[in-house]
Amino acid sequence: MSESSKTVDGWTRNERLANLYRRFVFNDYAGTRDFLDRLAALSKETDRYPDISFGKTYANVTIHADDGKTLTSDVFDFARRVNALVPVDGG
Amino acid sequence: MSESSKTVDGWTRNERLANLYRRFVFNDYAGTRDFLDRLAALSKETDRYPDISFGKTYANVTIHADDGKTLTSDVFDFARRVNALVPVDGG
Repeated sequence: MSESSKTVDGWTRNERLANLYRRFVFNDYAGTRDFLDRLAALSKETDRYPDISFGKTYANVTIHADDGKTLTSDVFDFARRVNALVPVDGG
Repeated sequence: MSESSKTVDGWTRNERLANLYRRFVFNDYAGTRDFLDRLAALSKETDRYPDISFGKTYANVTIHADDGKTLTSDVFDFARRVNALVPVDGG
């Protein structure tokens, strides 16, 4: 599959802004915090820091292209790893 | 001072949306994380969960009125306590 048609489950690809976006919803604040803590560890490991908006029971994650223009496979790999942080029961 | 003219250092009051907003900037990711961890503890203690947007070195905090209309003194007190979470050197 070419980079230009890549997608990751649950993520919305914005071509113009060169980013991937996904909203995660949780059962309670503890679920939200667990997710954010795991995401913080992943950011430290990968040195990739998405923009995150969150409230009590949600987190919106936006991953930007490194150069602000082109979504590389690193970005898609990161999105996949973020997906894997969510417990199957939704937290 | 009447509620309608109250302010808190550094925060912008939006009358129409009935919220208080402040942007916090940090020296590095560790500073951002420290602030978010302290804010999470404060939220748990007070059962007040502001909307937070953050990236590697910033966090934008929006505190909403409980009823979506009127900013009560509880909101201002919370904003003051959020200010107190920031180290004097900016984190």
